[in-house]
Amino acid sequence: MAPQMTTLKGERFDRSLFESVLKRRFFFTESFEIYRLSANFKGENRGLYDYGPPGCALQANLVDSWRKHFVLEENMLELDCSVITPELVLQTSGHVDKFADWMCKDPVKGEYLRADHLVETVLESRLSRGVNGQSKGSTRLDETTIAEYNDILAKIDNYDGSELGDLIKRLDIRNPDGDGAVLPPIPFNLMFKSTIGPSAAAPVYLRPETAQGQFLNFKKLLDYNQGAMPFASASTGKSYRNEISPRSGLLRVREFLMAEIEHYVDPEQKKHERFSEISKVQLPLLDRETQLVGKTETRTMSVEQAVTSRIIDNETLGYFLARVMLFLLKIGADPSKIRFRQHLDNEMAHYACDCWDAELLTSYGWIECVGCADRSAYDLTVHSKYTGASLVVKEVLPVSIKVDEWQVVLDKKFIGSRFKREAKIIQASVETLDQASLEVLAAKLGKEGIVTITTPKLTDGRTAVELSKELLRISKVTRTVTTREYTPNVIEPSFGIGRIMYNLLEHVYWHRSDDVARAVLSLPLAIAPTKVLIVPLSNQPQFTPLVRKLSSRLRSLGISNNIDSSNASIGKRYARNDELGTPLGITVDFETLVDGSVTLRERDTMVQVRGPEDDIIQAVKNLTDGVESWEQISQRMPQFASHNQDTHLLGGRDNINRK
Amino acid sequence: MAPQMTTLKGERFDRSLFESVLKRRFFFTESFEIYRLSANFKGENRGLYDYGPPGCALQANLVDSWRKHFVLEENMLELDCSVITPELVLQTSGHVDKFADWMCKDPVKGEYLRADHLVETVLESRLSRGVNGQSKGSTRLDETTIAEYNDILAKIDNYDGSELGDLIKRLDIRNPDGDGAVLPPIPFNLMFKSTIGPSAAAPVYLRPETAQGQFLNFKKLLDYNQGAMPFASASTGKSYRNEISPRSGLLRVREFLMAEIEHYVDPEQKKHERFSEISKVQLPLLDRETQLVGKTETRTMSVEQAVTSRIIDNETLGYFLARVMLFLLKIGADPSKIRFRQHLDNEMAHYACDCWDAELLTSYGWIECVGCADRSAYDLTVHSKYTGASLVVKEVLPVSIKVDEWQVVLDKKFIGSRFKREAKIIQASVETLDQASLEVLAAKLGKEGIVTITTPKLTDGRTAVELSKELLRISKVTRTVTTREYTPNVIEPSFGIGRIMYNLLEHVYWHRSDDVARAVLSLPLAIAPTKVLIVPLSNQPQFTPLVRKLSSRLRSLGISNNIDSSNASIGKRYARNDELGTPLGITVDFETLVDGSVTLRERDTMVQVRGPEDDIIQAVKNLTDGVESWEQISQRMPQFASHNQDTHLLGGRDNINRK
Repeated sequence: MAPQMTTLKGERFDRSLFESVLKRRFFFTESFEIYRLSANFKGENRGLYDYGPPGCALQANLVDSWRKHFVLEENMLELDCSVITPELVLQTSGHVDKFADWMCKDPVKGEYLRADHLVETVLESRLSRGVNGQSKGSTRLDETTIAEYNDILAKIDNYDGSELGDLIKRLDIRNPDGDGAVLPPIPFNLMFKSTIGPSAAAPVYLRPETAQGQFLNFKKLLDYNQGAMPFASASTGKSYRNEISPRSGLLRVREFLMAEIEHYVDPEQKKHERFSEISKVQLPLLDRETQLVGKTETRTMSVEQAVTSRIIDNETLGYFLARVMLFLLKIGADPSKIRFRQHLDNEMAHYACDCWDAELLTSYGWIECVGCADRSAYDLTVHSKYTGASLVVKEVLPVSIKVDEWQVVLDKKFIGSRFKREAKIIQASVETLDQASLEVLAAKLGKEGIVTITTPKLTDGRTAVELSKELLRISKVTRTVTTREYTPNVIEPSFGIGRIMYNLLEHVYWHRSDDVARAVLSLPLAIAPTKVLIVPLSNQPQFTPLVRKLSSRLRSLGISNNIDSSNASIGKRYARNDELGTPLGITVDFETLVDGSVTLRERDTMVQVRGPEDDIIQAVKNLTDGVESWEQISQRMPQFASHNQDTHLLGGRDNINRK
Repeated sequence: MAPQMTTLKGERFDRSLFESVLKRRFFFTESFEIYRLSANFKGENRGLYDYGPPGCALQANLVDSWRKHFVLEENMLELDCSVITPELVLQTSGHVDKFADWMCKDPVKGEYLRADHLVETVLESRLSRGVNGQSKGSTRLDETTIAEYNDILAKIDNYDGSELGDLIKRLDIRNPDGDGAVLPPIPFNLMFKSTIGPSAAAPVYLRPETAQGQFLNFKKLLDYNQGAMPFASASTGKSYRNEISPRSGLLRVREFLMAEIEHYVDPEQKKHERFSEISKVQLPLLDRETQLVGKTETRTMSVEQAVTSRIIDNETLGYFLARVMLFLLKIGADPSKIRFRQHLDNEMAHYACDCWDAELLTSYGWIECVGCADRSAYDLTVHSKYTGASLVVKEVLPVSIKVDEWQVVLDKKFIGSRFKREAKIIQASVETLDQASLEVLAAKLGKEGIVTITTPKLTDGRTAVELSKELLRISKVTRTVTTREYTPNVIEPSFGIGRIMYNLLEHVYWHRSDDVARAVLSLPLAIAPTKVLIVPLSNQPQFTPLVRKLSSRLRSLGISNNIDSSNASIGKRYARNDELGTPLGITVDFETLVDGSVTLRERDTMVQVRGPEDDIIQAVKNLTDGVESWEQISQRMPQFASHNQDTHLLGGRDNINRK
């Protein structure tokens, strides 16, 4: 069961109020909204959202913070790769076969339901109502059943298709919409498919992750990095997943912005140079073992402790988990609503050997926002094997060593003339043979003069070739090894920017204690869509040059700002900007005309200070640069309490145009 | 004929040398490169590119400059909309029917060729060789034929499919690859198609432009802007066009980053508030009339003059053309290689009523980089008509007026109960009837008691409904009008970021006069991928803390920098960074260890100055902030000429490790 969600101020979180703020202020809207009433509009077009100006700015600021925190801090190599990806690449990576969710069809409604979500929804509903089934004949749940349901829910991500099918049958789980029985789960591939070129003969997919483009460029990246290891590449960009039945608003969408890091590391040396900088960071962990006994309590400990006790596998993985924690805190996530959960075995993507999700608590429960997977050498190995490209690191050994080993020598000229453009693939297949296989082949070659080599699928459909002793020679040699060659392992922190954004907005949302209609988004200055609201107290023309000058001075300091010269009362203008999360407000009033002073208001406290324009601008700059806090500023500058902008809306005195 | 392309230094531009620099430095690479040799890889997967670290940074800096120059400067409202777009939206916008190019199939080769490019390639080849046809029996071109060919080429964009077919037949134009005859041109829709949801029953497309998402949100944008007009929305994001036969490297790609502005303006009032700020900007114009008489000479004049003489239709369009010119100059485009060309009638997209392209001269000829289209009220009108959503501006008139007019009153309750969810569409169809139609209908309704109203396609397939006099009443009334309602016109400056980037790189590329292998990219500081290279003269350990401190000081000033501590000679490290376009280099040498001074090198002149670290950092900051030029700095600071880094590569003395 998801814990009860509360706001920053400890009050019950009301999702419908919250969402109405986001829509009213145009943080986002469902895409093609004006079409949704048309008779010809297909209901399938869900899970797609547009960001309005504040959503767009918030997203840009999150990405910018992410780049500074991760990419620039560690000189990661940025890439921007194609979204459109040929089928062959995603066949090799395993996505064509394995990137699927299980779904059940309700044959009566013609509806498709994601199998694990169906089980989850039905069992949670039974638990909350305390009875089995929807009809009158339902029986009350006994203790054993309650325990069983909770156990299933704790490891719901660990069931495969047939296990889900068994559960659905055994527990008589039906479509909540109409109570119809559903068919057994079948896999549904989540990639959007299209074709490229006028002949329509070449199938392509929209990438489901940015990672593959990064892996395919590994060799170029290593060269660009002048051969030095370890290093990381990074990409931000849209990815696409054709979710079976997207609900939950911005949390389960079919088109989303990802930010992914692929950190390439020596598999025998997963220490991290900068581990000591973060070793004391405290992480709330929910590991695999805890979940498998049906528990959901986290244990908080330092990264160092978690790595030493092998709860977290290695320093590099621990380093990134800690850096993710610091990032989430920096952008304003509520520390009490963050946890790191380890994936269960069946839950992991086909390429991962370990994975920890950073999850944020929201009104939808705990939601995965960042996945930190150890993809081992999986991807580089499969692509290298298929293409024959060398995706390895070569390192000079400090001292050379001698080894006895089976060696295979190919006659490249013969191979080339016989296999043409496929020679490279065959060569790669031979070169990846291990010592044990070579020993067997050497014996066979000696006896029969010919051996069979398994290859990836060739043009003529074969997956093996025969090579005679004229084409290859296998012998035992003593070799002096001066370099070491290895395929790097990949540690991948992968961020869903849209999810982080939505969950963060839930975390920072609250309302003035006396008025649920006066919402506030306490976004940190660094990521707030607009930093400063500039309001002239009156819309008399003599204010115009003053507010314009202020705006342009702030802009030249790189501080985004908006002028609101509308006719609304100053209190309403502030209230509107509280909902937009604008941290600061500068008011130009009639005193400004006299002495050039302006006021500066802070969003959360509504406290105002007054000072000369230059001082106020300096204060704003200090706040945005992080060299001074609001507390310090409000103490050193004279407080101001006369506009009554805020009390106005609180039912206080009306705003007075003072002359 | 495209004029001969020369480099910045007036030498012949060598595209193969240029491209080898871009690939060597990983500005970009063909996507999935390691797969391109595999037998199963489809040749159709072309027109897709990945940007490496410098390309990625350059792209980000271009987008950032664009945002500052356009979006922030004018407080445009930014949006981020779905790429995946339902068929219905793009049917309404006209893209499903009209967003196509003409292509010819070569039935022997099984190849598809874009018809206009085929004609162009073949005629240009004939002109350059001076003969018709490829075979021995070819005849020399006479004066008349040469004139005819040039005339066709000057207006090649003005031919439709059947005209292209006639040309191909009449001039015996064949596939240059094999000389085979081609079939008549057929239209090929350029949108990538897919389906959404597990049922696969809902067709979707990848958006071919970001514009539609912006139009669909018009009402929300207007509300967000508190009803004020004019205003603009803006989006950056990927768009997709399934080009028939992409060649020309980065110029014709299937997936590309666009930056689009939709400026909404009163159709009766296309003046621009800030026109006077840019009225003196000089623009090189190639208007429609000039092209139609087969000429390609530009006329340079001020925007003011062009608008006054109606070469450019109105102030708003002129304003944006001037702002585009200023943007191109700011990012470093060569002023002698920019022109603005007006579209010919048949060349214009189906939604445009006027269009000017900013074109850059490159080794591929003049290439469109920015399109400035007047889309009139086309898009808002079609979407409003289809959905029934009101996409209009309502303005209070300064004085109310009285008008006699036909008025239609619907019985909304009857309509609602009879037409259910389609009532809104029918209502919209009735409300968009003009006065003349209403007059006719009023007469008919009086006589027959029933009228037929045309509608968009309804669920049952009908495109009209019958309404009896119980459902609607049409009568002549005198109305006091206090507000004016209008559908805004849209002026759309649309930028292809990838094209701008590639063309710009051609503009800034040159090589040291004595060595074609020493290439330089003279990118302006503001958009260069890395601003500063930091090089320790030696890789002895005592240099490490010095270069790290320098790097972190620059980073904290927001100045991107790279450390190169590789073993390469200092000259080679500088040469590498000249090819990356890095404008500045700081060298830490043995004197630094003694007195803390470092040197600062400028890329284009290779001049170096020396000073204390603080002074050099201040100089770098002044340069990036634009408050001081390199000329000023090199005059006020002591010059330095001892490292010989640059002369080293020029065949001079070897680099000396001075102690």
